[in-house]
Amino acid sequence: MSNNATEDIVINRAESTKIDAVNFDNLVFGEIFTDHMLICDYKQGVWEKPIIQPYAPFLIDPSAKVFHYGQAIFEGMKAYKDDNEDVWLFRPEENYNRFNKSAKRLAMPEVPESVFMDGMKKLLEIEKEWVKKGIGNSLYIRPFMIATGPGVIAAPAKFYRFMIILSPAKAYYSGEVKVIIAEHFSRAANGGIGAAKAAGNYSAQFYPTKLANEMGFQQIIWTDDATHSKLEEAGTMNVFFRINDTLYTAPTSERILDGVTRKSLIDLAKRENINVEVRPVLVEEVIAAAENGTLQEVFGAGTAAVVNPIVGFSYKEKYYELPKLDNPIALDLKKKLTAIQHKVAKDTFGWTVKI
Amino acid sequence: MSNNATEDIVINRAESTKIDAVNFDNLVFGEIFTDHMLICDYKQGVWEKPIIQPYAPFLIDPSAKVFHYGQAIFEGMKAYKDDNEDVWLFRPEENYNRFNKSAKRLAMPEVPESVFMDGMKKLLEIEKEWVKKGIGNSLYIRPFMIATGPGVIAAPAKFYRFMIILSPAKAYYSGEVKVIIAEHFSRAANGGIGAAKAAGNYSAQFYPTKLANEMGFQQIIWTDDATHSKLEEAGTMNVFFRINDTLYTAPTSERILDGVTRKSLIDLAKRENINVEVRPVLVEEVIAAAENGTLQEVFGAGTAAVVNPIVGFSYKEKYYELPKLDNPIALDLKKKLTAIQHKVAKDTFGWTVKI
Repeated sequence: MSNNATEDIVINRAESTKIDAVNFDNLVFGEIFTDHMLICDYKQGVWEKPIIQPYAPFLIDPSAKVFHYGQAIFEGMKAYKDDNEDVWLFRPEENYNRFNKSAKRLAMPEVPESVFMDGMKKLLEIEKEWVKKGIGNSLYIRPFMIATGPGVIAAPAKFYRFMIILSPAKAYYSGEVKVIIAEHFSRAANGGIGAAKAAGNYSAQFYPTKLANEMGFQQIIWTDDATHSKLEEAGTMNVFFRINDTLYTAPTSERILDGVTRKSLIDLAKRENINVEVRPVLVEEVIAAAENGTLQEVFGAGTAAVVNPIVGFSYKEKYYELPKLDNPIALDLKKKLTAIQHKVAKDTFGWTVKI
Repeated sequence: MSNNATEDIVINRAESTKIDAVNFDNLVFGEIFTDHMLICDYKQGVWEKPIIQPYAPFLIDPSAKVFHYGQAIFEGMKAYKDDNEDVWLFRPEENYNRFNKSAKRLAMPEVPESVFMDGMKKLLEIEKEWVKKGIGNSLYIRPFMIATGPGVIAAPAKFYRFMIILSPAKAYYSGEVKVIIAEHFSRAANGGIGAAKAAGNYSAQFYPTKLANEMGFQQIIWTDDATHSKLEEAGTMNVFFRINDTLYTAPTSERILDGVTRKSLIDLAKRENINVEVRPVLVEEVIAAAENGTLQEVFGAGTAAVVNPIVGFSYKEKYYELPKLDNPIALDLKKKLTAIQHKVAKDTFGWTVKI
């Protein structure tokens, strides 16, 4: 990464800011965006100069391939502000690397580090006021890339647009989260794009999730599509299961997203001398553990939600309530991770990066 | 369908036409669009009045869910002109019904028939000059719907846009088509969205197809993701295998698109007293047939390509060349189907619909 790369970013500042109209104590996730966005276009093999400009709708051709063939990928990240007014990112290189892995899997061009990382840092400098102090507060960062190239032939586009938009955030989920273990629907295929953060993966989940919502469940824990016997991931989160005092989570695969929060929690748990086993987690062993009382916790892990405790789950029309623990590992890990992210606890891992 | 519904379509005509600049003898599929497009917006539960207006880029929010969560579906259809200057559609109700099935699977609103069908007919009336006479000529119709609703929370949008764009077409593929049988990559999961004409399904295919292209093959025949033992469909086509004098094609399923050309060819073949078996087609039986000389033909079937003969295929790094027949069933069926579509042969099935 060139330190001089930000000189190559064109900046068109907004004439005024919307920030005074925002109630930061009462934010719905992902609805409000900051004053500026970053745009960088890719035209026939070359990335143009990134532009930071006022957040606004943009023009796109009706035949743009993103609309027809789903070439669209994204990342989810957060910026945090410490008590010294410094702004921090959490393991941004993980998101950058995963973004380009997703790009490759969808036959899209890789985004240079000078565009993704320096562009993000410059944008965050400009929007510094939008990052609020305090545990739970963050500025959600959404880098994404879409195929803007025109034409309705089913083939990769020749033109792409990389963008970064920012949205101030509080906690992602509220209330008790109950989930259904998938018995029929699936999120990803073997040899498919489940490991990519591809827009198409999410569109597959909405209808089954809507059915789950109608039954009183907030999310689905997806299982492998071939046998529905292995527990894989939830809507926007990886999943951990605590049986006795061991945490189990599925290994990442072609079907499962390599979550940054997931891998951070594994490292954090190991540091806390919590036993963590990364191996396929079978539905039947979790059901057996629920029935014999050894299943202690189930929780999701993701950038938006950080850690999301699950209070109960349904499988084959039977509901399993999880015990209400005084000191759940989920909340302890969440507290420790958010403390690192907010620079309240010492970052022994070197995960945090100052803007 | 109300016959008066077209009164409810707002029409803003283009000031001039681009048609005189188009070389209709030398068209690349899906690159040129006609003078007008249809737009119909869905806002919080209500479809607004459709508008036909000049084809042009449109404004969309950077946080529109189509970019982030892949809520995007489409159809592919064609209009044909007969010698009396009348314009015809081929089984349009099949596309309309499938479109709304796709909508449901992606948690998108169903599009009313008055918008989809009457809107399409009105648009085709206006663009009648773009439909050229003669076998092989057609006006490709691309109805599609995208989630325009803003917000980066992973949930279905509240706002959608339905559009129809039109592109004059000649044959979709040219040259000899060689394919690879998929051994690792997959197109669709059990319980996934493979049966929907969803943008996300195509994005999964581009990278493996690019690898195939680099090896000298134009397309991939996808296999079931769990075992890779069953032959399913190709990039944008269903697939037929002729062993001795019987045609075999996979049944439609959650993983396989219910193609209109596929089902039309089945009916047509049956009328011609060709034996057709719709049942899972195993890779091993096709390989065995290729080896013992009974595999006569392999061909794809889809709206864009109509019928696409395959000259050879690769499996486990071995290339199998298909025999060069004097009277292949593929070309006979293609000739008979296009004759019905172009109103040259009698449409005993009642498939063609006059605009």
